[in-house]
Amino acid sequence: MSRVRVHNLSVSLDGYATGEGQSLEAPFGHAGGRLHEWLFATRAFRAMQGETGGETGADDAFAAQHDPGIGAEIMGRNKFGPQRGPWRDHEWKGWWGPNPPFHTPVFVLTHYPRPPLEMEGGTTFHFIDATPEEALRRAREAAGGRDVRIGGGPTTVRRFLEADLIDHLHLVLVPIVLGRGVRLWDGLEGLERRFRVESVTTPSGVTHLTFTRP
Amino acid sequence: MSRVRVHNLSVSLDGYATGEGQSLEAPFGHAGGRLHEWLFATRAFRAMQGETGGETGADDAFAAQHDPGIGAEIMGRNKFGPQRGPWRDHEWKGWWGPNPPFHTPVFVLTHYPRPPLEMEGGTTFHFIDATPEEALRRAREAAGGRDVRIGGGPTTVRRFLEADLIDHLHLVLVPIVLGRGVRLWDGLEGLERRFRVESVTTPSGVTHLTFTRP
Repeated sequence: MSRVRVHNLSVSLDGYATGEGQSLEAPFGHAGGRLHEWLFATRAFRAMQGETGGETGADDAFAAQHDPGIGAEIMGRNKFGPQRGPWRDHEWKGWWGPNPPFHTPVFVLTHYPRPPLEMEGGTTFHFIDATPEEALRRAREAAGGRDVRIGGGPTTVRRFLEADLIDHLHLVLVPIVLGRGVRLWDGLEGLERRFRVESVTTPSGVTHLTFTRP
Repeated sequence: MSRVRVHNLSVSLDGYATGEGQSLEAPFGHAGGRLHEWLFATRAFRAMQGETGGETGADDAFAAQHDPGIGAEIMGRNKFGPQRGPWRDHEWKGWWGPNPPFHTPVFVLTHYPRPPLEMEGGTTFHFIDATPEEALRRAREAAGGRDVRIGGGPTTVRRFLEADLIDHLHLVLVPIVLGRGVRLWDGLEGLERRFRVESVTTPSGVTHLTFTRP
């Protein structure tokens, strides 16, 4: 059975995985880049942007697990863009330009379905109104036996954790206090009992936690 | 100038430093011992209980910093005991028996002052109704030039952090999701900007964070 994986989900000490006030200029709201500095510095992330260079230590080893073996992604609508409610700007095709770094089918959860968007490089965005279980069924079909990544944001990851659909969760604890934003942990009391948990701090100061289904 | 220090403050992934429902039988409420397993295993903690043995690795190195150089402690009333409101049980002398492990003056913050309790081994509990600043002034006087420990619980530590009175904060992130209890982080947005922050994970799976005033 293919696995359902989360990678590189950065969380503040107070449990926020994105800031308050998302906008076109601020995809992570008032958090800015503070949750992702460790990621931006890695070779794996830079390669996803078509750039060279970057750190190749432990942070990079974790970051590089994002893609291999993945056949489809499921993301929440707020990861796709800052629009809420009925789609008004039909020209918006995500934050990532004409060739997004997914290169697989991507299922965008929304209460406002619309026709798929086929992009360069193998990414097609499918806009579906579905429960986590139904979205996962569709993503698994599309993934052709490979794994499915739950790409975020925190609300989407939390819903899949609540439904106990995640097999591998990679979190990155960033030692900052964001104060406001979207919380990851609400409703997940006792989550650790369903997983084998490992922690490791890297020289950048973040702590990588992996929750793996035993 | 003597420093103001916090040691061994365990926090869950969702930011709770104690559970819900404190009682005589459950000093940490529904959290039980889950936030402190790393501590109970250390030689330093066992020595404080008058016991021998225990782990002597990195967790112990952190735990052992609790006492040296400390001349007084400030604690919240809920650390002293489970009573709320006016004191009814005057026989209650804390969780720690006749010879508490503090061996210094201890200032218990309460809206219901009462006469001091002199215990064996050098601990005297003083019950004062005071702001953090005033409590610290009194503790510093009593400490005779040594450092002052803010002993918890989370509400008390948070109040001293809000007032920017802490010089050294040692937190222990325990990879569990408590779901309910008393939060540490509320109102502390941007806390990390006032400190130099270090993180290290130990083989027990917890991550020690030190916030040190630069």
